[in-house]
Amino acid sequence: MKSDLDRLMQERNLAAIIIPAGYQYSSALDYLIGNVGISSGMAIKKIGEAPVIIANPMETEEAAASGLKVYSTTDMGYVNFLKAAEGDGTKAAIPFWGHCLKQLGVTQGKIGIYGVGELNFIVELVTLLRVAFPEYEFAGELGGTLFDIAGITKDADEIARIQSIAERTDQVWQATWDYIAGHSEQNGTVVKNDGSALTIGDVKRFVRRELLDRGLECNSMIFAQGRDGGFPHSRGQEDMALQTGQPIVFDLFPQEIGGGYHHDSTRTWCINEAPAEVQRIYDTVVEAFDIAVETFAVNKPAYLMQEAVLDHFERSGHPTGRSHEGTTEGYVHSLGHGVGLKIHERPSITHLRKDDIFQKGNVVTIEPGLYYPNQGIGMRVEDTFYVTDDGQLISLTPFRKDLVLPLKG
Amino acid sequence: MKSDLDRLMQERNLAAIIIPAGYQYSSALDYLIGNVGISSGMAIKKIGEAPVIIANPMETEEAAASGLKVYSTTDMGYVNFLKAAEGDGTKAAIPFWGHCLKQLGVTQGKIGIYGVGELNFIVELVTLLRVAFPEYEFAGELGGTLFDIAGITKDADEIARIQSIAERTDQVWQATWDYIAGHSEQNGTVVKNDGSALTIGDVKRFVRRELLDRGLECNSMIFAQGRDGGFPHSRGQEDMALQTGQPIVFDLFPQEIGGGYHHDSTRTWCINEAPAEVQRIYDTVVEAFDIAVETFAVNKPAYLMQEAVLDHFERSGHPTGRSHEGTTEGYVHSLGHGVGLKIHERPSITHLRKDDIFQKGNVVTIEPGLYYPNQGIGMRVEDTFYVTDDGQLISLTPFRKDLVLPLKG
Repeated sequence: MKSDLDRLMQERNLAAIIIPAGYQYSSALDYLIGNVGISSGMAIKKIGEAPVIIANPMETEEAAASGLKVYSTTDMGYVNFLKAAEGDGTKAAIPFWGHCLKQLGVTQGKIGIYGVGELNFIVELVTLLRVAFPEYEFAGELGGTLFDIAGITKDADEIARIQSIAERTDQVWQATWDYIAGHSEQNGTVVKNDGSALTIGDVKRFVRRELLDRGLECNSMIFAQGRDGGFPHSRGQEDMALQTGQPIVFDLFPQEIGGGYHHDSTRTWCINEAPAEVQRIYDTVVEAFDIAVETFAVNKPAYLMQEAVLDHFERSGHPTGRSHEGTTEGYVHSLGHGVGLKIHERPSITHLRKDDIFQKGNVVTIEPGLYYPNQGIGMRVEDTFYVTDDGQLISLTPFRKDLVLPLKG
Repeated sequence: MKSDLDRLMQERNLAAIIIPAGYQYSSALDYLIGNVGISSGMAIKKIGEAPVIIANPMETEEAAASGLKVYSTTDMGYVNFLKAAEGDGTKAAIPFWGHCLKQLGVTQGKIGIYGVGELNFIVELVTLLRVAFPEYEFAGELGGTLFDIAGITKDADEIARIQSIAERTDQVWQATWDYIAGHSEQNGTVVKNDGSALTIGDVKRFVRRELLDRGLECNSMIFAQGRDGGFPHSRGQEDMALQTGQPIVFDLFPQEIGGGYHHDSTRTWCINEAPAEVQRIYDTVVEAFDIAVETFAVNKPAYLMQEAVLDHFERSGHPTGRSHEGTTEGYVHSLGHGVGLKIHERPSITHLRKDDIFQKGNVVTIEPGLYYPNQGIGMRVEDTFYVTDDGQLISLTPFRKDLVLPLKG
């Protein structure tokens, strides 16, 4: 939780952290100061103190909305550094970063660098900062980082925001089901009133509008039919017509517009009818989902949930990443992940990593699936859950898990 | 241009470049391999060779759409590195990156790291790679980077894509004008048929829908009225009602959905009427715009265009960033910038940097403005232009520059 940041900084011996701002959405910056919309400058947090923002004078008004102390880059002498660098802001950053730290009273120690930005910039900047300011130890972090660990548990405000996104997403699920159902079938193709085919592009445009009207976006949603669905991350082909009787994987992971919290859920649909083999495999996936939920207990290692699902799939005759390392058929991915400002957070529910333990305040997905691309089959079922203060696992994805979506048109 | 990449790599003595993929859109990755939608793995380009993609097995199908050679991370032995790192993919990256370079035949030399991603990850990864693989020199880059310099000139395919975005954006300009014009006025407030106020949030929702229907998005558009417009990057307040007679800065910079090329344009509107002082200042801005366009010549240093505009504004009695360093009133920003996969590219049209020269293939904005937040005044006029093979500066923003937007409702 956010309230853990100072403790986590202390564990890492960090005197301060710096998160530079850019045009890219940065979840760490959002976590620290809110998504206030600064496109340059930075946030600096000294251990034990509230973060401060250093913003371009054109953006100080936006930054002030955070309620935090805001300095303009001009206050921090940026114009002279920029002049000395002949107008090159990336080179001006070398003296400017050191100057900002000193102005804020950070005279030495380990400085953690976080956030999202241009890799070439930070790699070279840090190389030069280490030479220019040997009194600091500029450091990144791999593995369970400061923000990874803080984000494993969400506070009440974060849960409430995710619940709101979940409610709006549920409306979009229903609207999309109804939208497709409103079409008719012609020789196995789903068609509009004018007889033209309903395409994946049409569905995605519909979904994007429904999301937009609710303050959400999900540009890289997956709507993958037949063979495409057999590749878990295939997004689907825009111009492909929807067909009856073919499994479609629809993975929807909306985020608040402009960056913010997520919800993550997946359904698999067969329009009008499901071949017996598809229904049988689907039932196995839903069983896996139910087994996962039953396996949950607070304080239990997350990997045990994945192992229960691996046992189930292997018992049912499906290859898995445990029984057949590197397989691209059968059950090929992890069971779930935390969800927050990033779509993939901790805890990770996988047999490959054993250090995550279910805790109250977790927001996690459970998403078993089976994939046989050469048989035109891919399927996955996914809900987002949160763990209550009394250790209950509560679904944030009430939408029905029917495989068959009947056309009414 | 893309065809310059090998020459630029040679100038930098780069044996290869690596661009890691992530959930964030990365313009350098898009430039190199297309926006194929991989969320992990990387692209590696050896000097003189086409780039190759190393993708998660779940994403090799997507990656193959690039037409480039694709290896799965499994082909590259990732599973064993991941196991050795106890499931921590960030730590597995250390041996994996070295292994991939060697598998591709890069045995030594300078390796440039580019793209967008998590800063803490790359800072620590590079620190550890330098220890683990001393045969390579892992490097970032400040200033005019490989991709910055290549992107200064666009090839015919890129210009055609930007033209298409410009045409769709022009339709959105007209639709937004018509949408607002369709309302009526009540005591200085713009109102809907039901008598409720038309808010900035309403307008932004409308614009987002219009963009979406045309395959575009612009989440952080600026629609800032009165005092807010006086801060050049203030996005405007969602719940603020539109008022007649107050200048509104509308800065629209759509990008292809999911990441791609941009168009950038700004208009300033006063609904129903403009106070004489606002009209007078607006005319000064439009004069500056015309002076800038007249000043253009291919092979001319870009900063001379900014100086012509600074001369004009200072002659007209306005403070500028040249006459009053660090001013937040008057003309406070640079005159323009390149536009491409990033919204801000080179060339930079500013008096602070003198190394950019107008060239054929440039796509640039021209965007003078004047800002007096304490008088409730902010205004800016911006078109995107491209420079033809015969050195002509052609506007990609035909939409009218009227200040007064009359209500018809």
